[in-house]
Amino acid sequence: MNKDSLALIKQSIKTIPDYPKAGILFRDVTSLLEEPAAYRATIELLTEEYKDQGFTKIVGTEARGFLFGAPLALALGVGFVPVRKPGKLPRETISQSYDLEYGQDVLELHTDAISAEDKVLVVDDLLATGGTIEATVKLIRKLGGKVNHAAFVISLPDLGGEKRLEAMDLKLVKLCEFEGD
Amino acid sequence: MNKDSLALIKQSIKTIPDYPKAGILFRDVTSLLEEPAAYRATIELLTEEYKDQGFTKIVGTEARGFLFGAPLALALGVGFVPVRKPGKLPRETISQSYDLEYGQDVLELHTDAISAEDKVLVVDDLLATGGTIEATVKLIRKLGGKVNHAAFVISLPDLGGEKRLEAMDLKLVKLCEFEGD
Repeated sequence: MNKDSLALIKQSIKTIPDYPKAGILFRDVTSLLEEPAAYRATIELLTEEYKDQGFTKIVGTEARGFLFGAPLALALGVGFVPVRKPGKLPRETISQSYDLEYGQDVLELHTDAISAEDKVLVVDDLLATGGTIEATVKLIRKLGGKVNHAAFVISLPDLGGEKRLEAMDLKLVKLCEFEGD
Repeated sequence: MNKDSLALIKQSIKTIPDYPKAGILFRDVTSLLEEPAAYRATIELLTEEYKDQGFTKIVGTEARGFLFGAPLALALGVGFVPVRKPGKLPRETISQSYDLEYGQDVLELHTDAISAEDKVLVVDDLLATGGTIEATVKLIRKLGGKVNHAAFVISLPDLGGEKRLEAMDLKLVKLCEFEGD
């Protein structure tokens, strides 16, 4: 990948200390969205990476996954399918629970949005523990969709998500890694 | 605007009866996202409408506003600024409450994301009562941003949002209108 573009993207991501709680360095992707050249470079790099590979759908997880998955779907000329919190999708859905630091949450996917003919790319802004993307991949596979690729703007490899997703037979693309988080 | 494109967009929007409750006809924009030609036409029509008019920022409201505002910001080459539910934005924010059918909710905007130099376009998927967009416009104006334009993929004029927003000196663009909702 183009190193100048990657540097532009990484520089545009602000770091917010002690958010959402003391000791956490929060990587803020909204600052990237505010810089048109960095945002455009992000979508261009992902488009270059995934074009002409036969993907039929992009799946993005509410809400920040929409910000990268939807423009990539437009650039690749394929459909965009949202995975959302419970009660947000109007057609028939399937659900998958996943663990949070305290308790559990649930994600939903429209039953008719993915079929066995689909080759799916999952896109999200940030890979930390990988819990939401693990649940997203399970939802896609429940509907018979093939999914072996996931893309992230930011990865925090110290939090274990990369290993967790690679163990699910996913090939990962990460534009920026921040170590020591 | 191109009538064939508008027809393609309107046809792609599924109607879900009795969602989220009996008697409501829910207009489902996720079915538009799944049709690449309709989704592309949506962004192209909005780009044609708003190019070369000096907009400096696009503001989109969580979460479906991201799906149209962010690709439009990329197409126009300007920054995208998200308005979100409380506790989701990591930098300093300002807040605005708005009325729901039962009770109130709050939206937040990063204080440093909009300035008095900005000419802002607000984008959302659907205009119903206009409550969230009224709150969004108030947030932008609190920070000194100029905002006199808002764009929607769908409008339900019977629900009063069009008049409410026009009374705030907003010029509206609506790609599809559904009457009788």
